[in-house]
Amino acid sequence: MANPSLLILPGDGIGPEVMAQVERVIDWFAANRDLAFDVSTDLAGGCAYDAHGTPLTDATMAKAQEVDAVLLGAVGGPQYDDLDFSLKPERALLRLRKEMDLFANLRPAQCFDALADFSSLKRELVAGLDMMIVRELTSGVYFGEPRGVTHEGNERVGVNTHRYTESEIARVARAAFELARKRSNRVCSMEKRNVMEAGILWRDVVQEIHDAEYPDVELSHMLADAGGMQIVRAPKQFDVILTDNLFGDMLSDVAAMLTGSLGMLPSASLGLPMANGRPKALYEPVHGSAPDIAGQDKANPIACILSFAMALRYSFDEGANADLLENAVQKVLADGVRTGDLMGPEGGTPVGTVGMGDAILAAL
Amino acid sequence: MANPSLLILPGDGIGPEVMAQVERVIDWFAANRDLAFDVSTDLAGGCAYDAHGTPLTDATMAKAQEVDAVLLGAVGGPQYDDLDFSLKPERALLRLRKEMDLFANLRPAQCFDALADFSSLKRELVAGLDMMIVRELTSGVYFGEPRGVTHEGNERVGVNTHRYTESEIARVARAAFELARKRSNRVCSMEKRNVMEAGILWRDVVQEIHDAEYPDVELSHMLADAGGMQIVRAPKQFDVILTDNLFGDMLSDVAAMLTGSLGMLPSASLGLPMANGRPKALYEPVHGSAPDIAGQDKANPIACILSFAMALRYSFDEGANADLLENAVQKVLADGVRTGDLMGPEGGTPVGTVGMGDAILAAL
Ligand SMILES: CC(C)[C@H](C(=O)O)[C@@H](O)C(=O)O
Ligand SMILES: CC(C)[C@H](C(=O)O)[C@@H](O)C(=O)O
Repeated sequence: MANPSLLILPGDGIGPEVMAQVERVIDWFAANRDLAFDVSTDLAGGCAYDAHGTPLTDATMAKAQEVDAVLLGAVGGPQYDDLDFSLKPERALLRLRKEMDLFANLRPAQCFDALADFSSLKRELVAGLDMMIVRELTSGVYFGEPRGVTHEGNERVGVNTHRYTESEIARVARAAFELARKRSNRVCSMEKRNVMEAGILWRDVVQEIHDAEYPDVELSHMLADAGGMQIVRAPKQFDVILTDNLFGDMLSDVAAMLTGSLGMLPSASLGLPMANGRPKALYEPVHGSAPDIAGQDKANPIACILSFAMALRYSFDEGANADLLENAVQKVLADGVRTGDLMGPEGGTPVGTVGMGDAILAAL
Repeated sequence: MANPSLLILPGDGIGPEVMAQVERVIDWFAANRDLAFDVSTDLAGGCAYDAHGTPLTDATMAKAQEVDAVLLGAVGGPQYDDLDFSLKPERALLRLRKEMDLFANLRPAQCFDALADFSSLKRELVAGLDMMIVRELTSGVYFGEPRGVTHEGNERVGVNTHRYTESEIARVARAAFELARKRSNRVCSMEKRNVMEAGILWRDVVQEIHDAEYPDVELSHMLADAGGMQIVRAPKQFDVILTDNLFGDMLSDVAAMLTGSLGMLPSASLGLPMANGRPKALYEPVHGSAPDIAGQDKANPIACILSFAMALRYSFDEGANADLLENAVQKVLADGVRTGDLMGPEGGTPVGTVGMGDAILAAL
């Protein structure tokens, strides 16, 4: 049988550096665990704009549709700030999400024991935290029409449309309930039903899918503003949080930041099953392209490496190998190996991006 | 000259209890500071629905338009959860905001020294925190058309419209710049220009108003998701945050919660100047109606009392009297007087809602 295929899109800023460490990990699995991938690499984001005048060429898009999984580093940088909306690096990401129909974005907000003191929250509130945000990723205000800036009378008017269909809500709700069953079996759904009719529909559909298909899962509903409050007050109350594209963007960033482990957090974006049974999938770190430290061997590659671990788990059913990789990361942290972002008052062994890759390979 | 007029809308849940303490404070100012108001009281929210079948009668709405300032307690409760969207208690609030055209919502996120340990954030990150969120309150996805749940083919579709005109953005931007000049002279504007065209317009208009009218104020722009991260990471970096209705709802709740002083935080919602030069205005605590503790003399009346202090300051130009009231609250806290929500490990003198009112009156 042919090897499973990966498309690697390192992107901009620190993307290429952290992805280089992932490629070393991929090679390790081929050499030592009989787990080989056919890997191709391409441009996405600002680097694609620089080379081709578009943040994502049709050829790259077509390749992404064909492979078993896409690994993305990060896109964006200040040099692209003045580009037209349609040419900005972020459009690469949004096009991949939309055309691959990656509707379920899984964002674990986990606090790594060795890093609990990095949280701005008190240690006891975050130590051991392990929640999962399931964010709808292909609809809502990100993609709704009509949209744009027009003129009315003497003035400009900006419009975006928040729009959800029943089936869009239902499929991401199912993804959340399925995940909850493998965790602590609780889902909290968040919207603003008190001010948005689309929030009422969201709530109703989630409740209906629950009652008909997942009555065994504990379901609660929270207003998104109150949800934001509860995430900063007592994050450990949550298991799976289910929410829409825009609220998910905000809430998952807040949750990620307060783990203290931002440089550590991976994400998976999953779509429908392909002919081979694997879901369409894209994996990427939660952190951005960090242009201020790019090219300096300073970036922490762990979020990107753990994104590959998520790929092993969710795309390739390689749970044991995913565990192996995650345990190697845990061990390196427990041993005190630290990139700059992880260096606290208690010290540790300072390493750069490559050094962290070395340590993780050694631990494997 | 006639006394200035106040319309008091105690609302639901703990609203009437906390507002009763404000009424005592109002009486104190009449008796001791020669500052008398003509006060009328009316129903809004669930209690109005119970009495009249609508959360806000036209007669109450008309009264709100005529007075110099409206004081609101809180609206809402679980018994109204199944009401139709148009009859829910929240509609009272939204109607007041919209018809009074209260476009600038001022939400101080302040950390009271005596309460810094209540924050879920580490003490040093919040002690001394004093930021002001200026939230646009009459437009955006809260009020945009088209909206509603319709049917397409076999399925339901929920739609809300995020819409901002140039002049709506400009007037709230001016409010933020004016405020910044009286504070630390810094405004950070937040939107999602990377995914929403309306966010691009928001950013552009804020920048234009700045350059033309407030070049002396330091202006920065942040993506709203990154803004949420920064608020939980290092809130003291901010002076004034300017943002739209929905982002403002989320960000101000997150900021409020992490001060540890949720039961303490007031808000002002201001509109255009009336014939007498005073702005249309509504003042309310940031906390909700807390139905679980309603009627038990447990609620903390301070947020509602400090909302009246904001009224003194912003509607009646009574800065000295506002200071007097705010200092009385500070003194009571410093003396260790505590409602249940403020009671920490170091103890204090436990009081109920009325007892806290007593203490504040005594301190005045
Ligand atoms: C880069 C940006 C378009 C993106 C988003 O808003 O979805 C990012 O913030 C994210 O959360 O993945
Ligand atoms: C009660 C609700 C309609 C309201 C809002 O969403 O604006 C509240 O959350 C607030 O922030 O004042």
